[in-house]
Amino acid sequence: MTFARLGPAGSEIPVLQQDGVNYDLRSLTSDIDGAFLASGGLAAARRALAEGGLPVLDDAGLRVGAPIARPGKIVCIGLNYSDHAEETGAAVPAEPVVFMKDPSTMVGPFDEVRVPRNSEKTDWEVELAVVIGAEARYLGSPEDADDVIAGYAMSNDVSEREFQLERGGQWDKGKSCETFNPLGPVLKPADEVGDPQDLGLRLWVNGELRQDGSTANMIFGVRHVVWYLSQFMVLHPGDVINTGTPAGVALGLPGNPYLRSGDVVELEIDGLGRARQELVPA
Amino acid sequence: MTFARLGPAGSEIPVLQQDGVNYDLRSLTSDIDGAFLASGGLAAARRALAEGGLPVLDDAGLRVGAPIARPGKIVCIGLNYSDHAEETGAAVPAEPVVFMKDPSTMVGPFDEVRVPRNSEKTDWEVELAVVIGAEARYLGSPEDADDVIAGYAMSNDVSEREFQLERGGQWDKGKSCETFNPLGPVLKPADEVGDPQDLGLRLWVNGELRQDGSTANMIFGVRHVVWYLSQFMVLHPGDVINTGTPAGVALGLPGNPYLRSGDVVELEIDGLGRARQELVPA
Repeated sequence: MTFARLGPAGSEIPVLQQDGVNYDLRSLTSDIDGAFLASGGLAAARRALAEGGLPVLDDAGLRVGAPIARPGKIVCIGLNYSDHAEETGAAVPAEPVVFMKDPSTMVGPFDEVRVPRNSEKTDWEVELAVVIGAEARYLGSPEDADDVIAGYAMSNDVSEREFQLERGGQWDKGKSCETFNPLGPVLKPADEVGDPQDLGLRLWVNGELRQDGSTANMIFGVRHVVWYLSQFMVLHPGDVINTGTPAGVALGLPGNPYLRSGDVVELEIDGLGRARQELVPA
Repeated sequence: MTFARLGPAGSEIPVLQQDGVNYDLRSLTSDIDGAFLASGGLAAARRALAEGGLPVLDDAGLRVGAPIARPGKIVCIGLNYSDHAEETGAAVPAEPVVFMKDPSTMVGPFDEVRVPRNSEKTDWEVELAVVIGAEARYLGSPEDADDVIAGYAMSNDVSEREFQLERGGQWDKGKSCETFNPLGPVLKPADEVGDPQDLGLRLWVNGELRQDGSTANMIFGVRHVVWYLSQFMVLHPGDVINTGTPAGVALGLPGNPYLRSGDVVELEIDGLGRARQELVPA
């Protein structure tokens, strides 16, 4: 069972997906957002489905949006796979590296990604995204993270490496360009994902496999990351955490094959679906 | 003429302030937010006042909230006053240093500021805040910034220096603790502020003057900052930009007199009012 949002950008219809059928959730909620997650919306939707109370949506031709409405924040963990830290020449961090993306960068999983003007180093990063379902403030232990994780999705944490690393200061400058966070296609409830530290992640550029990792190789696992972040900021329902990317980004590959307009990125995470983004000029 | 939001957190009443009187804007808008600013709300409110169409609000005892509703993002410029760059030991940047704060850190100008747990280095930063009034994407020149700036407010860009500088990686970790962005008391329309590069900024801790600067000493002025940011991200109506702080923060002072629970911070910017925050434990 997964959740998704289908329809034109800005007016997506919330749905529950089961056995290939999209069930319309508009009788329960206007959107899949922080308020819906915080009020136990995922469980309520399951109950409504079990009781036969959800109409089937005619989804023919509908665009797939990001599976949650615009988050309050997108927090990212940097260098969280040892093979990726190594390929970028960075030391393995002693504690999580934290940065942020502009939440308005979030787009749908099949939307176009814009290569910024004056960009020569636009790069890809397939990542497991955590979607927060309850407020988290100074969690007592990593195990407490289970109480505040609504589910998981797939992010492409698109990055402009010159802006990020060569233009002075902080990484955020290369992480917040328009369309730089495709999310989805689905939000999968945490209790249906299995072990979040045993998921394969893969990414292709123009059909060539570039990233082929496993969340088993995270330096700081999902529970640790959520617990850790809650010591420094309040996590709110609907917030998104990008948990880092495995090796295989352009920055770390021979010849640095950065993205150009016309390139096609495809990515998938076990159980979280597949996405495809074409690069276009900004 | 200024704009403000009065009332309990989460249910503030939007007002226009003229000659010490608060005029209730609820007949025009439910809130002072991005949609209100983008639709020409500030001008509409002025017209309504001129036509005598705004009731006076009985403001007795009402809390002062942040003057805009929760922004889509808070972008910050680091090391943007040469005296502050010098006191922190950093080089004067060749181009703006950009980082972000969690937008949920925004609180009212007289609300309590929470010293994070395990914090030894909570610091203050009085800053001129730009409030965006129209979408900005790849502005052609700094002069174009005038078309997208709704007005100005005052931020305290509260910062935890150990979290920011000594805990690995990026500054955001020390900038996003709960309550770390008091804003206000007012939003002043850009055309009533005069020259934004000629405003005095002052901050006191327990009555002792700690910062006493002028926006004339910004390395990158407001128009440059807005133009620059628009090359890296889309600025949306209601977004806030903290434009940097002058010298006099605890990090740069002899003995590093960081904030403790019970301390009182007061700050003001010419024409943008005065604020006061008491430090309490998180």
